[in-house]
Amino acid sequence: MTYCVGVLLDAGLVLASDSRTNAGVDQIGTYRKMTVYERSGDRVIVLLSSGNLAVTQAVTNLLEQKLKENLENLLTVPSLYHAASLVGETLREVLNRDGPHLKQHNIEGSAGFILGGQISGEKQRLFNIYTEGNFIEATPDTPYFQIGELKYGKPILDRVITSRTALTEAAKCVLVSFDSTMRSNISVGLPVDLLCYERDSLKVGLQRRFMDQDPYFDLIRHQWQEGLRRVLGELPDPSWEG
Amino acid sequence: MTYCVGVLLDAGLVLASDSRTNAGVDQIGTYRKMTVYERSGDRVIVLLSSGNLAVTQAVTNLLEQKLKENLENLLTVPSLYHAASLVGETLREVLNRDGPHLKQHNIEGSAGFILGGQISGEKQRLFNIYTEGNFIEATPDTPYFQIGELKYGKPILDRVITSRTALTEAAKCVLVSFDSTMRSNISVGLPVDLLCYERDSLKVGLQRRFMDQDPYFDLIRHQWQEGLRRVLGELPDPSWEG
Repeated sequence: MTYCVGVLLDAGLVLASDSRTNAGVDQIGTYRKMTVYERSGDRVIVLLSSGNLAVTQAVTNLLEQKLKENLENLLTVPSLYHAASLVGETLREVLNRDGPHLKQHNIEGSAGFILGGQISGEKQRLFNIYTEGNFIEATPDTPYFQIGELKYGKPILDRVITSRTALTEAAKCVLVSFDSTMRSNISVGLPVDLLCYERDSLKVGLQRRFMDQDPYFDLIRHQWQEGLRRVLGELPDPSWEG
Repeated sequence: MTYCVGVLLDAGLVLASDSRTNAGVDQIGTYRKMTVYERSGDRVIVLLSSGNLAVTQAVTNLLEQKLKENLENLLTVPSLYHAASLVGETLREVLNRDGPHLKQHNIEGSAGFILGGQISGEKQRLFNIYTEGNFIEATPDTPYFQIGELKYGKPILDRVITSRTALTEAAKCVLVSFDSTMRSNISVGLPVDLLCYERDSLKVGLQRRFMDQDPYFDLIRHQWQEGLRRVLGELPDPSWEG
């Protein structure tokens, strides 16, 4: 499976993806699900993918090809809306081509993307692109998107994230959300790719891959676990009247 | 939807259920999903239900009828294993009777139960009864079961609950798990019924219904939220090297 999160903050964007793919429990692989398009000073666009790997890889390959052939591509589109449209259209191309063949074999060919970034002249924006190729945009009321195995890691995001959350705080929250997800679903796994984009910087800020046994990730996993137990211990005992 | 949890501890059992039912978002109802069978000094059996309400109500009605007709029933079965079998058989009776009619209208007739308790002469036990009428039993390795909307509330249980957890601690953890679930899925809702059974007491111990605006439930929701934010704030900032 997959778990990806994108958070739209006043301060910028936080984007993260896991790297596990599986076709059944006996076929597990590691694939990076984050693709970064950057032209420093002009734009940063980050694409996170979930779903059928052949479909998502075909989409990123076609996007790359459009770039090489000087067709409209993610480094030339005039706005993030156009970027999301281009990804959606490319996904439709792939599914028009491969979908009928997948269907013949009862294979689920769906895919989804989170696209976030900023293009010079616009503010930072975040989109959730559906397998149908259409999409929605994050707003201050709903400042984050998840794709893939989203439920385990949602409560901590709901409790912490608002559009006013600081970048580093949101990044830690996202890592905790990944930890919660990976504990409950083995089809989501390390490495986790994390990227923080600072508003109006128009370049990739902090980027980090957390591998297995990463000392920082291990530390926050441990400290979070201990912290939760402490907070739980401090809750008053139930009163049984009423 | 529904959310129910049963926890098997060395110290006893914690069982909890929400009360929301829905047939689409425009038809929401409140039904208690916890049924308690008690003969003080001999047994306590608690049944939590999820799934199609007509099916689960039919099961509890038939169980009640068996009791009135002096057939084998939950107050006479010699062991918890027999109790789980009886519930499974009753569920099969209902689905044999109603299933084909539901299928004609493409209605999902599935149901699931958590059954926990203790019968004199046995230790406390906990079962998860599937819609097929068969079941599994909790062990110290996997000391809890959830039915219904289980993902949102699972991480906190995984982080806290072991068979050595104290009853009150587990009860608080279960309430937090309900809070996490209710925040993320509006089809799970208050009132929450909570029951703690103390090992070898052979009577219902503490039992409590948390209604909307319950001061204790509101307090722990608030304190938990604040505690989580504090723990997150205390986590060291990511190091971006590596």
